[in-house]
Amino acid sequence: MVSEDQPQNNDKKLDLGRFPVRTDLAREAHDMAVQERGEDGVPGVEMDEYEENGITTSWIRIHDDQGAKELGKNPGLYLTLEVPDLRSQDSKLQQRVSAHFSDEFQKFLEKVGVDLNAKVLIVGLGNRNVTADALGPFVVQHTMVTRHLFELMPEQVESGYRPVSALAPGVMGLTGMETSEIIFGVVEKTRPDLVIAIDALASRALSRVNTTIQVADTGINPGSGVGNKRKALNRETLGIPVIAIGIPTVVDAATIAYDTVEFVLSHLNRELTQTKPTNPLDPLNRADVKELQSQEVSPRTGKHVLGMVGTLGAEEKRQLIHEVLEPLGQNLIVTPKEVDAFIGDMGKLMADGLNCALHEAVTPENVSAHVN
Amino acid sequence: MVSEDQPQNNDKKLDLGRFPVRTDLAREAHDMAVQERGEDGVPGVEMDEYEENGITTSWIRIHDDQGAKELGKNPGLYLTLEVPDLRSQDSKLQQRVSAHFSDEFQKFLEKVGVDLNAKVLIVGLGNRNVTADALGPFVVQHTMVTRHLFELMPEQVESGYRPVSALAPGVMGLTGMETSEIIFGVVEKTRPDLVIAIDALASRALSRVNTTIQVADTGINPGSGVGNKRKALNRETLGIPVIAIGIPTVVDAATIAYDTVEFVLSHLNRELTQTKPTNPLDPLNRADVKELQSQEVSPRTGKHVLGMVGTLGAEEKRQLIHEVLEPLGQNLIVTPKEVDAFIGDMGKLMADGLNCALHEAVTPENVSAHVN
Amino acid sequence: MVSEDQPQNNDKKLDLGRFPVRTDLAREAHDMAVQERGEDGVPGVEMDEYEENGITTSWIRIHDDQGAKELGKNPGLYLTLEVPDLRSQDSKLQQRVSAHFSDEFQKFLEKVGVDLNAKVLIVGLGNRNVTADALGPFVVQHTMVTRHLFELMPEQVESGYRPVSALAPGVMGLTGMETSEIIFGVVEKTRPDLVIAIDALASRALSRVNTTIQVADTGINPGSGVGNKRKALNRETLGIPVIAIGIPTVVDAATIAYDTVEFVLSHLNRELTQTKPTNPLDPLNRADVKELQSQEVSPRTGKHVLGMVGTLGAEEKRQLIHEVLEPLGQNLIVTPKEVDAFIGDMGKLMADGLNCALHEAVTPENVSAHVN
Amino acid sequence: MVSEDQPQNNDKKLDLGRFPVRTDLAREAHDMAVQERGEDGVPGVEMDEYEENGITTSWIRIHDDQGAKELGKNPGLYLTLEVPDLRSQDSKLQQRVSAHFSDEFQKFLEKVGVDLNAKVLIVGLGNRNVTADALGPFVVQHTMVTRHLFELMPEQVESGYRPVSALAPGVMGLTGMETSEIIFGVVEKTRPDLVIAIDALASRALSRVNTTIQVADTGINPGSGVGNKRKALNRETLGIPVIAIGIPTVVDAATIAYDTVEFVLSHLNRELTQTKPTNPLDPLNRADVKELQSQEVSPRTGKHVLGMVGTLGAEEKRQLIHEVLEPLGQNLIVTPKEVDAFIGDMGKLMADGLNCALHEAVTPENVSAHVN
Repeated sequence: MVSEDQPQNNDKKLDLGRFPVRTDLAREAHDMAVQERGEDGVPGVEMDEYEENGITTSWIRIHDDQGAKELGKNPGLYLTLEVPDLRSQDSKLQQRVSAHFSDEFQKFLEKVGVDLNAKVLIVGLGNRNVTADALGPFVVQHTMVTRHLFELMPEQVESGYRPVSALAPGVMGLTGMETSEIIFGVVEKTRPDLVIAIDALASRALSRVNTTIQVADTGINPGSGVGNKRKALNRETLGIPVIAIGIPTVVDAATIAYDTVEFVLSHLNRELTQTKPTNPLDPLNRADVKELQSQEVSPRTGKHVLGMVGTLGAEEKRQLIHEVLEPLGQNLIVTPKEVDAFIGDMGKLMADGLNCALHEAVTPENVSAHVN
Repeated sequence: MVSEDQPQNNDKKLDLGRFPVRTDLAREAHDMAVQERGEDGVPGVEMDEYEENGITTSWIRIHDDQGAKELGKNPGLYLTLEVPDLRSQDSKLQQRVSAHFSDEFQKFLEKVGVDLNAKVLIVGLGNRNVTADALGPFVVQHTMVTRHLFELMPEQVESGYRPVSALAPGVMGLTGMETSEIIFGVVEKTRPDLVIAIDALASRALSRVNTTIQVADTGINPGSGVGNKRKALNRETLGIPVIAIGIPTVVDAATIAYDTVEFVLSHLNRELTQTKPTNPLDPLNRADVKELQSQEVSPRTGKHVLGMVGTLGAEEKRQLIHEVLEPLGQNLIVTPKEVDAFIGDMGKLMADGLNCALHEAVTPENVSAHVN
Repeated sequence: MVSEDQPQNNDKKLDLGRFPVRTDLAREAHDMAVQERGEDGVPGVEMDEYEENGITTSWIRIHDDQGAKELGKNPGLYLTLEVPDLRSQDSKLQQRVSAHFSDEFQKFLEKVGVDLNAKVLIVGLGNRNVTADALGPFVVQHTMVTRHLFELMPEQVESGYRPVSALAPGVMGLTGMETSEIIFGVVEKTRPDLVIAIDALASRALSRVNTTIQVADTGINPGSGVGNKRKALNRETLGIPVIAIGIPTVVDAATIAYDTVEFVLSHLNRELTQTKPTNPLDPLNRADVKELQSQEVSPRTGKHVLGMVGTLGAEEKRQLIHEVLEPLGQNLIVTPKEVDAFIGDMGKLMADGLNCALHEAVTPENVSAHVN
Repeated sequence: MVSEDQPQNNDKKLDLGRFPVRTDLAREAHDMAVQERGEDGVPGVEMDEYEENGITTSWIRIHDDQGAKELGKNPGLYLTLEVPDLRSQDSKLQQRVSAHFSDEFQKFLEKVGVDLNAKVLIVGLGNRNVTADALGPFVVQHTMVTRHLFELMPEQVESGYRPVSALAPGVMGLTGMETSEIIFGVVEKTRPDLVIAIDALASRALSRVNTTIQVADTGINPGSGVGNKRKALNRETLGIPVIAIGIPTVVDAATIAYDTVEFVLSHLNRELTQTKPTNPLDPLNRADVKELQSQEVSPRTGKHVLGMVGTLGAEEKRQLIHEVLEPLGQNLIVTPKEVDAFIGDMGKLMADGLNCALHEAVTPENVSAHVN
């Protein structure tokens, strides 16, 4: 939940290293670990990746505690779709991504061991009154729910469907209750076999906002770090698998500034070292974004172009920026101006994808006739 | 819940008398019982009423099974506010009614034995996507929730407040779950001392739509009569008091037709019998509505002005109309064209009233500073 | 505009005959005229009708003043679609009606003499804050506008499109200006060749609410009868054709009561006279609605079943009901409870239909890719 | 209009200096000019400023072409309110700012020579479907319109009011028409004495987003720079005064990055030079934001801490950042995550302020009873 569960303006004094800036995305953590180690792989972590039609799909499995420590993420299975062009509001592309998401999500369910008849509860986290945080409630509203039909008139349900229920519990500031209190109660009474929780995330990279989808079987922890009172939602606490789906929708000013400084550094480094560039004028070739982000700049060049600041490591730079902006009250959390359309598009994409993945009888061709 | 839990178009053949048309309002049932008996009181039922500033307030207590049978309502306490001019969208009147509702509701809490520190869960029933059914969710959205503050930082909560939580669970067609399943689960996990459930009702009198508020300690029965599977929410099932607040927001075409026929009958009767009329041209004198509604028409006059139909009793007329409209698909459930404004006004009125009644520190003067 | 331009609660005393209750629908006026005359045709009026797949399509041309007088409508061309099942929220049917509307509307344009390249201004009348009156603004929001592309980058516009602009000017209570003042000004500055005005209508038959679409080339008269100051929008005043599209979305309580009384009369008449009924229990056989509405009841039977009231003519009955309800403040204007969904569905149907009809390159198959 | 009229992603290649990054705010331009000149005043420009209760009010008059050239703004009168704490969502402060805005706006009207009876047309620019751009339409919706009462029933209008009309014409992408075409037409037909145009602006300083209000008598130029076809709305083109009210609601990533780099520079400079800081940990002391922004950093220090980049001038740094981000498609235009609440609060503040300023009979105490 973007809205309330990650209060980012509380800590007046940052202790470098005490709060290492972590990412919610396993894919990002993996890239950083690889970059740091200077090797191809990370011990205890397996990763597969392929790119097709502008969609990069990666599967990461963190096998053990070592892998977990390296990536700063819990052991488990992570699926990530990266689609840089999703922000272009191209409805054809959205449909393609939706169908692809559906296929991959079905594979994910199989790998997690969820069978075709498993009863599913979809939980839409977030605040419906804050557009940037309304992804979860939006998906719930467009979810095809069927559980009541199985309960009340089972003989009338055709084959090809499974029992699905859905709830957008609202945020603590609006309900006065922990999200987990509500979900625990509902799960106990309605006995699903699987929980799918959908949430808008804070991103640590501007380029990921509304372009990346992560699916993980590690559950969620609403309001992690804000106190001991909140319980995680996962297989241990609920007794059933909890799959979390997250999309970055906001970013803080410090991240934007950091990313930009890195872009500028790489850009100048490239000019200084005469690296043959990919064509930076081609906006469709978004691979350059990644390349610039991952490009190594020698300390000497760094110092040359950015002085003292240029010699800082990545985390040090992040901390410096954070430390300056935060006390000034200028580390705003922001979202693209087009947030209304983005949330609508992403929510539709994801709801359609889930509806197709969860019911055999629902396909990309007929999904729109199944829901309103 | 207006939306789904009272399907009114299913029964193709009506068996006169098998489904006697009942009212949700104790006040209405009481008036009908008195009219039928031709006496002042009803055995087993106590009733107090006073009118002030355009607001008629009545307290009805159904003491025992006899009273319950006479009125067709469960034994318990019923508070009713009737404000015919509420539809005039007069903001001053709305504030006055809100403050009066707050006062009476506090008395109601005392009578029910709920103390000042009792923890309250407010449940907004209904479908937020159907404006006429969105009263409950609207009130929840404007409720001042405080429970999380008591839980997370009790030392910082000033005196004059109590722990309040709130939830709009959504309707079964959107969640796939019974409302009671969700509420049972949430009550078990969050342990309130009292549930207040808010719902939009179907009215059986056009004149009551958006003008009447009923408070009862008898709980609610979402989807009563639609099957055995749904459990009531009341003191027996939840173990804590359940106060239901209801406002009629819709009416069916048959009711409109019946009411009109009665108005016409009374009107003609009056003309024929030379009763001195209250001025029927004065729209502010809404007392005439009630008078016309309750006026007795002799069978002879009835026959004269309305023929065969005029000789039917009230229930027979209702059944005839219902029986004709229903198979034609014309017994639409309707709501005033101004429903968007009415729901907004009534929801604000009720949320403000509840916020004042539940927290000593909140008053009609400062309530708007407490909520958004 | 439903909202403000037809104040129906002002006239305290009705003078029978001075304000004959008229209908906005030529089709309805035609049926009434035929019924009154007891003949097949009406002098000066031509009418064609066919039924297919649950859609009744009729074309009426009022040739001259005699026809105009008979029907109480201006001379001109009227196209009417009647689809009783539209209220069933069947998305397949909606698409079928949308495509059919598009075909018929293209014929209408041809008959009116509007060519393929004519520049079109679509005007959405009504109040977007009042759901029942928001049809016009809703259609404007889903209209494919292209005029600015023709103006700013004509060379980039592919063939198969024409210049379309769109405006939802809002109602006088929100703008302080007559709708016609705004439209006159905009037409003068932007010079379209045709105005299409879309409006929600008040119906005089419950069965027509959200089931009937009328297209007319006679223009519109926002707020007709409320004063001399408002000018009509039509070919005379604007110098270009003005096509009005209207859908009944509201009805007043008096109409519901009148319709019901008629249904009851016909029903009892039928039972008394042993007419073999169409099966009144079959809700899909909506032809019975029309049949019951048009069935003649002999005065003797009328008197028998409805007494004095049964002997009144149609207009007299309407006036009596109106006269009784109005001063009581109970002649509410109402709309079906499902108004939110109905307006969304009808608006989508009409916007899709117009987009297909106005641009050769847009078809029912690709229309959803053209708009959001 | 944020949404469409300032396409910022078109120019692939930036020519440093050809598109000097300009500000919409005279106050900001004045500060920059003073900083560049190193003097107190700017020739041809008069400026008054005072601070009270957290609100900084400044009046700037650009007298002549020299002043206009220095500031890059048209000659005219500019009123600016700066309230850093407005983002804290404090309803008391909002009311205080609203009342202060009303007072200052009345002075503005006097200085511009608009008398108490002048007829006013309020134009809300922007796209109601894009929350960050919906300020204008929101204000229009909460404007107290009265013109129709003066036109239709002048004898019933009490004293203390003036004729006000209001229109939110929508953006070109939704109407297919230039905003100015619509406004020209409406002004011609309805003949107001004054136009007040309200718009959301793109800011060039993160700290100004939702904290600054500018009033100017120089009119507006929707879509300035996008082509010759769009006409400005001002006294020359309309023949009546045009007052523009603007509030920055969005900012681009490049601006955030630039601001942050400057904050970091100043911060490090301060540490290096041992300047006694205002307490940077006190978030309420927002004066430090301005101080840090305006602090001069010596080229030598600049080079030390930021290397090559540190030696660039302000405009050069901006251009460099822009030049790097733009081709990568990462120069997103963003708005604070809380945009829904901010637009609601600012719109309410401004609508209340205008309603009080335009009608003598409306005061901060009774304004809420005048509007919905």
